[in-house]
Amino acid sequence: MWKYKTPGIPDDLFERVERVPITKEEIRTIQLSKARLNPGYTVYDIGCGSGSISIEAAIQVENSGKVFAIDYDSNAVELTKKNIEKFGVTNISVIFGNAKEKVRELDQADAIFIGGTGGDTTEIIELCQDKLKKGGRIVIATILIETLFSVLQIIEKLQFDSIDLTQVTVAKSKRTTKGNMMISRNPITIISATKT
Amino acid sequence: MWKYKTPGIPDDLFERVERVPITKEEIRTIQLSKARLNPGYTVYDIGCGSGSISIEAAIQVENSGKVFAIDYDSNAVELTKKNIEKFGVTNISVIFGNAKEKVRELDQADAIFIGGTGGDTTEIIELCQDKLKKGGRIVIATILIETLFSVLQIIEKLQFDSIDLTQVTVAKSKRTTKGNMMISRNPITIISATKT
Repeated sequence: MWKYKTPGIPDDLFERVERVPITKEEIRTIQLSKARLNPGYTVYDIGCGSGSISIEAAIQVENSGKVFAIDYDSNAVELTKKNIEKFGVTNISVIFGNAKEKVRELDQADAIFIGGTGGDTTEIIELCQDKLKKGGRIVIATILIETLFSVLQIIEKLQFDSIDLTQVTVAKSKRTTKGNMMISRNPITIISATKT
Repeated sequence: MWKYKTPGIPDDLFERVERVPITKEEIRTIQLSKARLNPGYTVYDIGCGSGSISIEAAIQVENSGKVFAIDYDSNAVELTKKNIEKFGVTNISVIFGNAKEKVRELDQADAIFIGGTGGDTTEIIELCQDKLKKGGRIVIATILIETLFSVLQIIEKLQFDSIDLTQVTVAKSKRTTKGNMMISRNPITIISATKT
């Protein structure tokens, strides 16, 4: 279905449903780069939404690696499953439920993506710290200022270094009858760090 | 030197010299994603600067592929060579000279990055059209409005489809004594398209 090695699958290749968010391709590409993946890695995708990050991560970690895609919204879980089928990846386990409970049972992770915490930011990041291997990477995408602040507060207190905040604002062209106009998207702030 | 599969080598791992630009990691990562690389591919990097895109592309195309890094600034050529040595990649040929002449002699390309055209935008893009394989990708990063306009004018006339304009504005955090402030970088517009 997607035959290239570099991450960045175009958004329009994914199945979509209303109210389930997708991490757009440019933001997704940057998040994947911050996670620094390798074949054989174990990856969590907490708040997997449409599953776009899980699928790209699954391709990067290859069949020797695995991805756990978690969401508490059953629509997201269904959509992720549909996209997994569409892209023909076989190394993703989709988990329906609260990450705070579900993550405890999983194998230690080399990289964790957090796309949503359902308000339990502090608790989830503490849990991710415990589940990450030494040298493992955490990558958190935030839209809300409140989430960004909470992430920053907790991540600076825990066992993380190389903390990086990158705010990305993307605008895409739209062809009108007279020319190309740019349409701006909302800024996303990506926090990434290495478990010490 | 860099042991991960996903693109996005941190900027501070590259050797730098004054006045030779580097494509910063987040922009570089997006450019690589737009190029859709695979092992075995032939890639040009026109206006290679510090060589950061050449090196990441060389890793993606693996030893079965090759990258031609071209620059008319001898400082850029020297710096690219230094970075190639630092990262231990062996599938990049560095070419000093004017892309308009040098590109003619090269094998057909699967992907072409243009980081600078020295003002000859139209001519270089026409030449790249001729040198790109059908289905090959062109990825052009622009800072100047004039370059963006020129690229758009010519690319819409030539044998390209799936033309995409993505403007990316990145801000990075800086730790002050009182907290984290964001420092904004200039917007970069990335034009990408597929040769028909």
